[in-house]
Amino acid sequence: MENMQQIYFTPGPSQLYPTVRDHILQALEEDIPSLSHRSEKFHTIVKDTYDSLRELLDIPKDYQIFFTASATEAMERIIQNCVEEKSHHFVNGAFSKRFYQIALDLKKSSTQTVASTDHIFDFTPTNPTDAELICLTHNETSVGTSIPTEKLNTDKLLSENRKPRTENRNPLLSLDIVSSVPSVALDYTKLDCVFFSVQKGFGLPAGLGVLIVSPRAMVKAKQLYEQGHNVGSYHKFGTLYEQAQKFQTIETPNVLGIYLFNKVLHDMLETGIATIRKETEEKAALLYDHFDSHPSLTPLIPQNTPSWRSQTVIVIKTPIGSRAIIQHLKTKGFTIGSGYGDQKEHQIRIANFPAHAIKDIKTLLSNF
Amino acid sequence: MENMQQIYFTPGPSQLYPTVRDHILQALEEDIPSLSHRSEKFHTIVKDTYDSLRELLDIPKDYQIFFTASATEAMERIIQNCVEEKSHHFVNGAFSKRFYQIALDLKKSSTQTVASTDHIFDFTPTNPTDAELICLTHNETSVGTSIPTEKLNTDKLLSENRKPRTENRNPLLSLDIVSSVPSVALDYTKLDCVFFSVQKGFGLPAGLGVLIVSPRAMVKAKQLYEQGHNVGSYHKFGTLYEQAQKFQTIETPNVLGIYLFNKVLHDMLETGIATIRKETEEKAALLYDHFDSHPSLTPLIPQNTPSWRSQTVIVIKTPIGSRAIIQHLKTKGFTIGSGYGDQKEHQIRIANFPAHAIKDIKTLLSNF
Repeated sequence: MENMQQIYFTPGPSQLYPTVRDHILQALEEDIPSLSHRSEKFHTIVKDTYDSLRELLDIPKDYQIFFTASATEAMERIIQNCVEEKSHHFVNGAFSKRFYQIALDLKKSSTQTVASTDHIFDFTPTNPTDAELICLTHNETSVGTSIPTEKLNTDKLLSENRKPRTENRNPLLSLDIVSSVPSVALDYTKLDCVFFSVQKGFGLPAGLGVLIVSPRAMVKAKQLYEQGHNVGSYHKFGTLYEQAQKFQTIETPNVLGIYLFNKVLHDMLETGIATIRKETEEKAALLYDHFDSHPSLTPLIPQNTPSWRSQTVIVIKTPIGSRAIIQHLKTKGFTIGSGYGDQKEHQIRIANFPAHAIKDIKTLLSNF
Repeated sequence: MENMQQIYFTPGPSQLYPTVRDHILQALEEDIPSLSHRSEKFHTIVKDTYDSLRELLDIPKDYQIFFTASATEAMERIIQNCVEEKSHHFVNGAFSKRFYQIALDLKKSSTQTVASTDHIFDFTPTNPTDAELICLTHNETSVGTSIPTEKLNTDKLLSENRKPRTENRNPLLSLDIVSSVPSVALDYTKLDCVFFSVQKGFGLPAGLGVLIVSPRAMVKAKQLYEQGHNVGSYHKFGTLYEQAQKFQTIETPNVLGIYLFNKVLHDMLETGIATIRKETEEKAALLYDHFDSHPSLTPLIPQNTPSWRSQTVIVIKTPIGSRAIIQHLKTKGFTIGSGYGDQKEHQIRIANFPAHAIKDIKTLLSNF
């Protein structure tokens, strides 16, 4: 049983996108791990990766795309480059809390709004309006909640008395889409720093992050740099920008990771983002329907706040404990996630990424 | 010809260690890319990686081992955590210069000693003694020079009038061993921060760095943190230490990279570090002997300073230009490196890593 072939419904690292194994074999065939990051071939891969990601997610042409080592690194670089004194964080789980902690570590006078016990925010005029950057986590992987996309807009997040967002006025808006990309459709023109890592929705090996930056955030970073603030070193926005223009990075990056990301982007473009998003919704509906009518296992985010339910990470309360359920499913060939942190024994988490086939979701559910 | 199978003598990324292809296939078999970084299995891999690296390089038990994304990241973390005001950098090429630039970017009042035009340092009592950290690059990948290991000792680097290094006195000594590990034998008790990345001497895909930290450097990092200095966030030494105790990292790391590193460490332990080092010397002798007697292609580091010649990256001046030589060798199945930066057209670089077999070096040389 131990060695039974598993399908991974863990919230990340998760199931590999179905084509990744073949792409890895092809990478070995092409000597990609020996490829110089200063070679024309690598620059072509990077340029095509930018283009493909821009097309898949509908990222505006004037937004920059940078590679980082992880989403966590992206958090640090955003604070360093976009905040002189103060960011404001909406905290409803472990990852939004991490971002807030990073701001404090970097000596910013940052503030937080903590979600109500049901992990939901009441975006009212009481929210602080003096922060330079507002940080939201679109999909909190730790608790399975998702902020409705129509709220992802600084003007709606803040006092109605505020003047609307303009080219040169704060606040900037940062959005963590680690576990909702590529399924979430976003209006990037309302956002300034958007970041993710590739081991969740893209179904890739971990070790690569992506940071998307608006022209306004680039202006802010330039101001802070020119004023002499410490905005970091080799991954300050100015350096990332200069290198990205040459389709390079200062450091030797995760070349194999970028190659595989490029390949999966092409696979997804071929499937079509509309299809991927439609299937995500269908699979999420299957999952929530199942547990909404289950006698004991119920979704953490209740049925009466449907727009706050994550489509991509479904968290289920397990009054009988999570361990036996996880063990049972493993014997059936399904690896699911435990609850996050101190909820490890009391919840389970099921990912719904593009790598997860509808038929596998159905078989998984039939085993509960 | 374009598609001829190549052996990579590039200075990194370079030829994969001969076992890596099979380890990647085994990783796919074991679902390593889907493995949670919070799982017992992953923690076992990390613990065994620490143990194996410690054994291979003879790293003292009380030194910490941390993972970073790259050697460049290690430079940033070292400056953040070990320098309040001033580091001093011995600069003899692009990578030692990068480290110095990172210190300046991080707003330190750092200083540099620039090497003579033959890339060699005269370590005399005139070197500054008021820096908190002295930074040396053991093997400058850009110019093919190596600092003789007997000089890697702060007392010898500085004024003879200085009191010797003690438990709580500065300066700390940082050493970049990116392109000399594992071939260089070091006395770690004389060193405080030692770092490398895995795509050179270990013959692995890029995207993973390793940072080795002495107890003295940990004390310094703790002092800076407690005094309220900005020492970074998720990768400050204190957090890296806490996580390493649990065989974890805060971020989702390059799980596949760590797995492969672990496997190659075991392969190298089986071969034996003495054998690897002996073979490195033999291959280096073959390379230097060949070019010392070549009519037009001569080593950049001259024959009269043999102890400053890198054993692992041999840089050769090409008065007729580098391009034709590189193209010719490619048709024979050998990819070598061009000169670094503005020497691209005027030099070639040949790596001599454990992945490079003696017979391949001989065939390569027979094609010059």
